[in-house]
Amino acid sequence: MGEERREGGGCEAAEAAARVAEQARELQDAAAGLLSRTWAEEEALRRRAAALAAELARLRQAAAHADSEKVEDDLDRATCLIIEGDIASLLPSKTHDTFLKMFLGPVNLRATRKEVQLKVKEEYNRYRDRTALLFLGFPMILLFLRSWLWNGCFPALPVQLYQAWLLFLYTTLALRENILRVNGSDIRPWWICHHYCAMLMALISLTWEIKGQPDCSCKQRGVELFLCWAIMQGFAMMLQNRYQRQRLYTRIALGKARRMDVVWGETAGVEGQLLLLCPVLFLLQGFEGYVGFLLLRTAHTGIVPEWQVVVCGILLIAMAIGNFANTVDTLMAKSRFKAKMRKSKGKRDLDTCNSPTGLSPTNSTARA
Amino acid sequence: MGEERREGGGCEAAEAAARVAEQARELQDAAAGLLSRTWAEEEALRRRAAALAAELARLRQAAAHADSEKVEDDLDRATCLIIEGDIASLLPSKTHDTFLKMFLGPVNLRATRKEVQLKVKEEYNRYRDRTALLFLGFPMILLFLRSWLWNGCFPALPVQLYQAWLLFLYTTLALRENILRVNGSDIRPWWICHHYCAMLMALISLTWEIKGQPDCSCKQRGVELFLCWAIMQGFAMMLQNRYQRQRLYTRIALGKARRMDVVWGETAGVEGQLLLLCPVLFLLQGFEGYVGFLLLRTAHTGIVPEWQVVVCGILLIAMAIGNFANTVDTLMAKSRFKAKMRKSKGKRDLDTCNSPTGLSPTNSTARA
Repeated sequence: MGEERREGGGCEAAEAAARVAEQARELQDAAAGLLSRTWAEEEALRRRAAALAAELARLRQAAAHADSEKVEDDLDRATCLIIEGDIASLLPSKTHDTFLKMFLGPVNLRATRKEVQLKVKEEYNRYRDRTALLFLGFPMILLFLRSWLWNGCFPALPVQLYQAWLLFLYTTLALRENILRVNGSDIRPWWICHHYCAMLMALISLTWEIKGQPDCSCKQRGVELFLCWAIMQGFAMMLQNRYQRQRLYTRIALGKARRMDVVWGETAGVEGQLLLLCPVLFLLQGFEGYVGFLLLRTAHTGIVPEWQVVVCGILLIAMAIGNFANTVDTLMAKSRFKAKMRKSKGKRDLDTCNSPTGLSPTNSTARA
Repeated sequence: MGEERREGGGCEAAEAAARVAEQARELQDAAAGLLSRTWAEEEALRRRAAALAAELARLRQAAAHADSEKVEDDLDRATCLIIEGDIASLLPSKTHDTFLKMFLGPVNLRATRKEVQLKVKEEYNRYRDRTALLFLGFPMILLFLRSWLWNGCFPALPVQLYQAWLLFLYTTLALRENILRVNGSDIRPWWICHHYCAMLMALISLTWEIKGQPDCSCKQRGVELFLCWAIMQGFAMMLQNRYQRQRLYTRIALGKARRMDVVWGETAGVEGQLLLLCPVLFLLQGFEGYVGFLLLRTAHTGIVPEWQVVVCGILLIAMAIGNFANTVDTLMAKSRFKAKMRKSKGKRDLDTCNSPTGLSPTNSTARA
């Protein structure tokens, strides 16, 4: 009787196992079918999009001298849909992601679903917020400990930990911003380039020997200045993050911004914050250049005659000049844009698709 | 007449523009439809897969004592399809990719198409090949230049460039291997951990001041040993890359390996190369530990009393021990597997699905 039941149980188990194996096979077939079907449909859409883009380019060239508003409107709307619509996520990304390829190999980092893209964007914003706090806190603690605990002389390890963190931070920022670009964000190339420079500087500063006693205050003048600059940088980052988030929400509410934009322009409101932000940015850029100049001077007068000091000095000055040029460029683009808006008021909203050609300068604002 | 033709042309252009705008709208609708439809179908498959996996786990528990070969076969086949089939690419990855999240944020790095996964894998192999050459060449050139050009004394810059390259290399390897894991490769966790250790060591070695004259040969003994070790490492890497590629092709041809496997076992052929590889690996590990020990000794005797020397020494010894333990573990797993194969010869191929539970030790081999 017990034997029979066990055999019956064995039979049941065998049936259940066979059923599960069959279900797994069906599931595999369904998945394979879905994948190949989706791929085929995507390919068809890609071909249609390519043909349409070619046709659009032809028409735009032909209509260049026509000056018909209706035609331009239609062409803008079509371009807009191809660049920003769901079809865009199926098309190969046009950005040159050499940096990403170098670090990650040939992986696809473009999310097809808008929700995923936005999640990446929001995580990037949160990351910037956390980062700004550390950016402010880390050098402040170092400077505080120097006078309180270390008798006016930085020990090497904490400073080097900070520099290693900077290297990590700028690497991740550069990677994440490149990923955002692949996903359709219009971040200005200069800011990514700026992060490459900062990566290089953090790397070089790691090889830069931090000399101790005697005569700390003289030998460590460069480190001290650098930390002061970092505090200002952290302060400006927090201000910018707040400003940019407010601006983005305003513009999304007005239907004037894509949520993937990282940096963007000014068409209405929150002018007060910009009045605060701009002087801070210019002050910061000036100070950045000044620190670079001081570094070069210490190298020239032979106090710290290492190549690292010279290269860091040059990099800081280059970044200061680049930041300044980009901030001024953005501000000028804004005033140009405002003038244009006043002229074409009521005719048509220049900013409906935000940047039909992907070249509109109004989507980038000043960042340090 | 001319006026009329221009108007006619304008009318044509307007019609063409309107048609293009209409086509763009249709394309957008089609793309949006495809994306949402695909997503819904994927979701349905995911739900079915989850239910099936739960059922499988239940049956496997129930069949644990049954010892029925037929049942086990069926369950193995089902598990195999869920883990390795097309459905796997739709399921969320189970690997903990904290490292990737830290560097890249919450991006999806899993490719749904097998071809893309294989492209990533092949690019990784090519990257390892290129890397091995540099790994061999870089320290050899440094050592050669030291005696030929630099009078037995390394200048700081070239060594630091090499260390920066090592940091970059190990970071990219760790990133790429984590990406491979997310895409279903079964690379052993230790090798990724090993790359984390190596990253840390490269970072620390950057902060490590390279002292020059006088008495170079004594002060730069650590650097010299490190470069010798790097040459052996490069040599072993080239040997391994060759061995692993041959093994992979053999196993793919025998239908015993997934092409995503990075490191794998030994069930047939090419024994000769393994006989060469194993002593080289053990020699390398011994030398790695020895370099670590020498570093600790120089720190202890006070020749180079910096913390970097101590930490690098400890890291090298830890990596040597870990590598040794993993190599021995792999070799033992191989002999266990061979014994098992002899016992169950002709009964059923243990390796058909390669690793039905994802835990088969035979998929990992020794790597330095």
